[in-house]
Amino acid sequence: MHIIGELLGCIAGICTAIVFLPQSIQTIKTKNTAGLSLSTYVIYCIGMICWIAYGVYLHSIQMIVFNAISLFFALIILYIIIQQHHK
Amino acid sequence: MHIIGELLGCIAGICTAIVFLPQSIQTIKTKNTAGLSLSTYVIYCIGMICWIAYGVYLHSIQMIVFNAISLFFALIILYIIIQQHHK
Repeated sequence: MHIIGELLGCIAGICTAIVFLPQSIQTIKTKNTAGLSLSTYVIYCIGMICWIAYGVYLHSIQMIVFNAISLFFALIILYIIIQQHHK
Repeated sequence: MHIIGELLGCIAGICTAIVFLPQSIQTIKTKNTAGLSLSTYVIYCIGMICWIAYGVYLHSIQMIVFNAISLFFALIILYIIIQQHHK
């Protein structure tokens, strides 16, 4: 049960880290941001910054690394959304 | 420091819970899914299921509730993406 529990946490963390990789590739390629919600990406980035800070507070390297990777991809998408808004 | 740390975790959890609320409202209203990555929503839902299961393993009610709310909104978006794909 212990191994299964830790494995679940690991898969969950990896999913969090890479979740916006396909979205960022698609958005970079197509520049189609009409269907993307600006608010969702703003909330996501704020959330990730809080998770990273909470990871620092808990001294959890995994939490910091996984959420920093996720924030990186979300910021790419947020940047393109804002860029397209101003065109 | 203790209060700030717990507050950060709370804000992070709330952000995770509501992150896809604006995206799901926008997608329900516009049905515009052309810019949305199917893979991202599949990975997100798998990740949320793992977080909920990990929350069960850790006996963390907050982790279960916040991630279940997030999964609910992500599933709405995933459903509309699949529905629009088959049109």
